[in-house]
Amino acid sequence: MQIALDAMGGDHGPEELIDGAMLAVKKTGLQVTLVGNQQVLQAHLDRLRPGDPGLSRVHIVHASEVVEMDESPVDAIRKKKDASVLVAFDLVRQGQADAAVSAGNSGATMAAAVRKLGRMEHVSRPGIASIFPTLKKPVVMMDVGANVDCRPQHLFQFAVMASAFSHIFDIERPRIGILSIGEEVGKGNTLVKETYLRLAASSLNFVGNVEGRDVFQGNVDVIVCDGFVGNICLKLSEGLAGAAMQMLKDEIMKSTLAKIGYLLARPAFRAFAKRVDYAEYGGAPLLGINGVGIICHGKSSAEAIKNAILEAAKMVEKQVTEKIAIGLAESVQDEEALV
Amino acid sequence: MQIALDAMGGDHGPEELIDGAMLAVKKTGLQVTLVGNQQVLQAHLDRLRPGDPGLSRVHIVHASEVVEMDESPVDAIRKKKDASVLVAFDLVRQGQADAAVSAGNSGATMAAAVRKLGRMEHVSRPGIASIFPTLKKPVVMMDVGANVDCRPQHLFQFAVMASAFSHIFDIERPRIGILSIGEEVGKGNTLVKETYLRLAASSLNFVGNVEGRDVFQGNVDVIVCDGFVGNICLKLSEGLAGAAMQMLKDEIMKSTLAKIGYLLARPAFRAFAKRVDYAEYGGAPLLGINGVGIICHGKSSAEAIKNAILEAAKMVEKQVTEKIAIGLAESVQDEEALV
Repeated sequence: MQIALDAMGGDHGPEELIDGAMLAVKKTGLQVTLVGNQQVLQAHLDRLRPGDPGLSRVHIVHASEVVEMDESPVDAIRKKKDASVLVAFDLVRQGQADAAVSAGNSGATMAAAVRKLGRMEHVSRPGIASIFPTLKKPVVMMDVGANVDCRPQHLFQFAVMASAFSHIFDIERPRIGILSIGEEVGKGNTLVKETYLRLAASSLNFVGNVEGRDVFQGNVDVIVCDGFVGNICLKLSEGLAGAAMQMLKDEIMKSTLAKIGYLLARPAFRAFAKRVDYAEYGGAPLLGINGVGIICHGKSSAEAIKNAILEAAKMVEKQVTEKIAIGLAESVQDEEALV
Repeated sequence: MQIALDAMGGDHGPEELIDGAMLAVKKTGLQVTLVGNQQVLQAHLDRLRPGDPGLSRVHIVHASEVVEMDESPVDAIRKKKDASVLVAFDLVRQGQADAAVSAGNSGATMAAAVRKLGRMEHVSRPGIASIFPTLKKPVVMMDVGANVDCRPQHLFQFAVMASAFSHIFDIERPRIGILSIGEEVGKGNTLVKETYLRLAASSLNFVGNVEGRDVFQGNVDVIVCDGFVGNICLKLSEGLAGAAMQMLKDEIMKSTLAKIGYLLARPAFRAFAKRVDYAEYGGAPLLGINGVGIICHGKSSAEAIKNAILEAAKMVEKQVTEKIAIGLAESVQDEEALV
């Protein structure tokens, strides 16, 4: 299997991305194509240990341009025809790669994926899913930022797509909830109330509304919401986790005994940090495009990039795209039967 | 000053609420009127230490009915004319109390406040504000659940009202942000983009969009959002804080050294828990009604009830209602000047 990695995107530059690619190929039988400036990438590879067995499974495909993090995605994709993220998705289109991964500008990654691979049939709007750690199994939330103003059919399609994606966790019949502000039917805004009825009438395993406080309980496998709400939830969670650890450390630093206690408990803190770290779960899959694409956090470490590459490989292996197509076709049949 | 407490609402029953009232009167010169079943409340008071100096400042006003937590707010308020929450707000209307506090059904508390005290002039929709702990000063978020489908003028009014409320923290010119999914102007859904322009054109101290990850940084004093998004943020934060502590404890319990470390650091953990505990900040103020009302979490402890009573007293003392009226009148003048 061949994964194309946009080796120019992200906040840490090519070195961290290449390290991630090396970790991935060493851990598995995967091949990784680094897409970006040939000279820059080759220089980084040359610095690695010669004879490293991983090197034979990492290749470079040249791309002369880069989309910057703060560029307008639409403009950038239109103007920079040879941008690394476009070339990466073009490799997927041509069948030279099985999936593409980027830690660059996420709007541009989404735009490049749609431009090169196209929207799937029956999908009104492709979206971005995200994996949240919970007290039990991870939960898949969709959409987390691609679509800010949604209609019920969009949320319905997110439910179908995220359910198919959750097969990578070997979940047979994923339980689907809709993010709302009360458990009972009839609670929520107009969008939620209409989507609720649509999901309830479908053959999906819909379990009803999920409140904010239940997201981390892990009692559902999939949570649907519009991209505005989902993105706020994602970033609020990140921000709260960081702020809470900071506040706890502030309190610990006030006392010598507490500091000693912290040192003794440090392995537990590390295990905890690993458990809540988004990087452990790879990146955010783009769902609804004809192929496999993953967006990583701009701040992704080599470890996070490795996990995203493995996640992309798993999506290919588990035929997530094909499963989404089947799910969508079934839901269209369901609706036609209802009419 | 006299605060009316709905002594029948909440998950823990009258005892916890009465304990909260006693804590409040002992700490301050306040008087508290307990509203609810005379016999039940008197029996609880009789169990307290006779001659307790606080007892002389706690009184009972009888109300024969109670709105249950799971009742439809609108139906309950219509049918149960003698519900404790209605009687509490009626005391405010009659001038026999300066403010009302309830830990009961929050929809019913909102409905009772509007029914008895009425909406303020220039307010399209009263709302609920909430105080979030941050790394710096607390931040006031509004709306957190009263209004799920909002228009720009509603969010604009939330900004005016929450700013006036933030005077209880002695903030002179509160910095106002709007919750969105990117910092730049033009990021967000339609509602946010339209509200942005309206806030930017006003004389308010508007600082722009605030992302989910910045909520806990404390760089703004007020965050506005619609009640659907705000309620999800509030409950997600509660849920995440709880789940994170659970995960950390799970990890600590796996090792003896970590357990010893935890014991040594426990005072720091307690100080941390206090810092992130919503109860420390009192309840959620109802803003946009002609008077002072506070909704407490159903699970509120006596400590939380005490803090809510003190918060209500502070709102009266700082003339929050009058400040909101002035702010709204000014914003209406601003708009007329623009036309």
